[in-house]
Amino acid sequence: MIPHDVKQSFIEIVGLENVADSKASQLVYSFDATPQFQSMPDIILSPRNTKEISAIVKLCNKHRIPIVPRGSGTNLSAGTTPLQGGVVLLFKHLDQILEIDEENLTVTTQPGVNTLELTKAVEAKGLFYPPDPSSMKISQIGGNINENSGGLRGLKYGVTRDYVLGLEIVLPNGDIIRTGGKLAKDVAGYDLTRLFVGSEGTLGIVTEATLKLIPMPESKKTMLALYQDMEAAARTVSTIIANRIIPTTLEFLDQPTLKVVEDFSKIGLPTDVQAVLLIEQDGDKETVERDIQKIEAICKENQATDVQLAETEAEADALRTARRSALSALAQLRPTTILEDATVPRSKIAEMVQAINEIATKYQINICTFGHAGDGNLHPTCMTDVRNQEEMERVEKALEEIFKKAVSLGGTITGEHGVGAMKAPYLHLKLGEAGMNAMEQLKKAFDPNNIMNPGKIFAKAERKRIVVSHE
Amino acid sequence: MIPHDVKQSFIEIVGLENVADSKASQLVYSFDATPQFQSMPDIILSPRNTKEISAIVKLCNKHRIPIVPRGSGTNLSAGTTPLQGGVVLLFKHLDQILEIDEENLTVTTQPGVNTLELTKAVEAKGLFYPPDPSSMKISQIGGNINENSGGLRGLKYGVTRDYVLGLEIVLPNGDIIRTGGKLAKDVAGYDLTRLFVGSEGTLGIVTEATLKLIPMPESKKTMLALYQDMEAAARTVSTIIANRIIPTTLEFLDQPTLKVVEDFSKIGLPTDVQAVLLIEQDGDKETVERDIQKIEAICKENQATDVQLAETEAEADALRTARRSALSALAQLRPTTILEDATVPRSKIAEMVQAINEIATKYQINICTFGHAGDGNLHPTCMTDVRNQEEMERVEKALEEIFKKAVSLGGTITGEHGVGAMKAPYLHLKLGEAGMNAMEQLKKAFDPNNIMNPGKIFAKAERKRIVVSHE
Repeated sequence: MIPHDVKQSFIEIVGLENVADSKASQLVYSFDATPQFQSMPDIILSPRNTKEISAIVKLCNKHRIPIVPRGSGTNLSAGTTPLQGGVVLLFKHLDQILEIDEENLTVTTQPGVNTLELTKAVEAKGLFYPPDPSSMKISQIGGNINENSGGLRGLKYGVTRDYVLGLEIVLPNGDIIRTGGKLAKDVAGYDLTRLFVGSEGTLGIVTEATLKLIPMPESKKTMLALYQDMEAAARTVSTIIANRIIPTTLEFLDQPTLKVVEDFSKIGLPTDVQAVLLIEQDGDKETVERDIQKIEAICKENQATDVQLAETEAEADALRTARRSALSALAQLRPTTILEDATVPRSKIAEMVQAINEIATKYQINICTFGHAGDGNLHPTCMTDVRNQEEMERVEKALEEIFKKAVSLGGTITGEHGVGAMKAPYLHLKLGEAGMNAMEQLKKAFDPNNIMNPGKIFAKAERKRIVVSHE
Repeated sequence: MIPHDVKQSFIEIVGLENVADSKASQLVYSFDATPQFQSMPDIILSPRNTKEISAIVKLCNKHRIPIVPRGSGTNLSAGTTPLQGGVVLLFKHLDQILEIDEENLTVTTQPGVNTLELTKAVEAKGLFYPPDPSSMKISQIGGNINENSGGLRGLKYGVTRDYVLGLEIVLPNGDIIRTGGKLAKDVAGYDLTRLFVGSEGTLGIVTEATLKLIPMPESKKTMLALYQDMEAAARTVSTIIANRIIPTTLEFLDQPTLKVVEDFSKIGLPTDVQAVLLIEQDGDKETVERDIQKIEAICKENQATDVQLAETEAEADALRTARRSALSALAQLRPTTILEDATVPRSKIAEMVQAINEIATKYQINICTFGHAGDGNLHPTCMTDVRNQEEMERVEKALEEIFKKAVSLGGTITGEHGVGAMKAPYLHLKLGEAGMNAMEQLKKAFDPNNIMNPGKIFAKAERKRIVVSHE
């Protein structure tokens, strides 16, 4: 509950029209794209500028009111659920691209800008912002920064972190700081810029960002390689890289995913094979041509039953869109869809996929696997039903085993979705006690009163998704 | 002074042969490559493994003894001077490349490995580790990580930070943690990996690193563009990038630097021009050919008086070596050489170079400027004499004005050399009070007893290089 006088102060800061606390609004912001995590916020605020955000934060810090900064809420780790109530902070008024600088190859933007819109705006100037999370049609760039979002082009181009050059941040004490700048190099003290990228709104609020752009690649080719043998597909991934070729995209879909995606998208995907690789290369025309030829040869040497090159950009786009729709398609199968993102070194993909299948069989649950094979970033996706308590317990056990296996292979519990509330009970598997302790000290240093997105990253208890909290 | 029983414990931990505290050894490690900063350590330890480092750190933490981890001491910010005495920690026993993984494109290494040796080892396998600080013949990879070293290839390939995937770290409490891994994507908690890169040994000790490699580019071309007009050279830099070409290297040398470098290297550099650009492009043969042609045209359109293409790799290498020798060459002119690395957005290079020249004239001091023009990372280098107190005061004033100008242009006080002791008095110019405060809180969270490289980054007072401390 927000005390009456605090609510009055919020109204003074942002204006009455930017304060919402009806049951309906609370309900809207009680969940994000993550199934089975729901908690009611007390109030939803839509500040109009950084100064207002600073004033809100100061007030919240004084009164120990939690703040959850929220973009479009497309994250899959319950990162933007207001677990302890308080304020949900929206960026709908901070939705402007401030500058595209063609000499320094940067874009400076407010956090509420839609990712796809930003991408299109820079592409109109022949520039390229590579991070392309599957949610980019809906997601906001501020959310991408908080989550360090990845995407399909991560293999060659890296993730959001690799493109953030500078930030304006409101710290939990209300201080406004600026980090980095339009600078390729800056070692003036600790790298707060990258520390804030992926910190899931637990250290402060990003209110402006300067992002690095690169020249738009001249050409692109897209292909599908079909396999009757999962191992062969995984081996192809390693072999391509070991041949010193880094494709833009190297995605993997298993048979169950293929079937569901084809049903959903109807673009003629093969459904009679065990696995496909969706492979893209971009760059200069000659390089792309040569790489694609080499990749085709490698696929065939590794028992691809067929290799299909997209003839037109429309065909290529259909393939990419189909891949991006995998989650939506799978979500239609059963009431509850849990998408994971265990990640391993790419040389361990075959072993990891096999382990996932064995674990699914062991616990008799339904798991489809797709993902960014080139990154080792797999998305084992469990179709289940949260109303079935007994099945959910098996799901939890299976997921824990998957995480443990990933870590034992030198991997991690989350490659691009973040820890949020969903992965918090498993974080110790990757970090160990000393690592957890170091991160908790860091959190305390920035946010001693734990007002910023409390309950995320650091699990108080072994809270898992079986329990649904309705406050 | 190290208490006798603590010294005995050090001997027990690392063995007598790995403990040195003679006056001669203290003197050797009382300074690094930075002129005018000298302080005596109490003891020099050469541990043989991570466990020994952890034991040393625990002991130092208990007795509040400062530890300065030191690679080859080639840094230029007095980052490895033992300002408050204590332990200098060497990595001469941690000098092994542990693994080159050709499937995952990673190298895992101990911190004491020489940078050039690591580069050669991976190149022997057709792989590429791009960061190439000018000191790479001497520097150690652990030092590069602590300093987030840049280099000549930074424009296209980024800096050390962009290649560090995972670390083993001994924290100031003696805990050993592992961050990241052979993973293109990992968002399991805060990004401690990148936080430690460039933290100058103030947060803990890096004892192992997994670095990203990329395929070796197929071909490379090197050229020199000559200018009678500094402005025209600077404009060329911006124009190349604005034309969507990112060269590997885009270096700038002004006339005074050219003269000195030619005297030193005798490779036939032009000395009758106002400035030259050293430009390299690498990649696929066709791309390189086309880019170099485009760049040549852009140089000529921007009043280059001549463009010279290196005919052979030997000729190209001579040019690169000449550029790398700029500091050594300039250092022969007068007793004291102060190399700075004020950095600005690349669109501001012309303005910054002009400001540097005006400031030099105003204070009647001798400054040559060269550096990584493509990055906006300039190295204004002051040839002076520390024994001349009156001149040194003018030098200090000039440098402070240069830093202020860089920050006012959206730049930073240090692009790649670090803050260390030398830049600490100026850090507030870039960060402001709130930014300084955030960083100090972070430091305290990791190192509450301030044992890790104390006196660096955060200046207690306005200690500048005029005062030489001999403890």
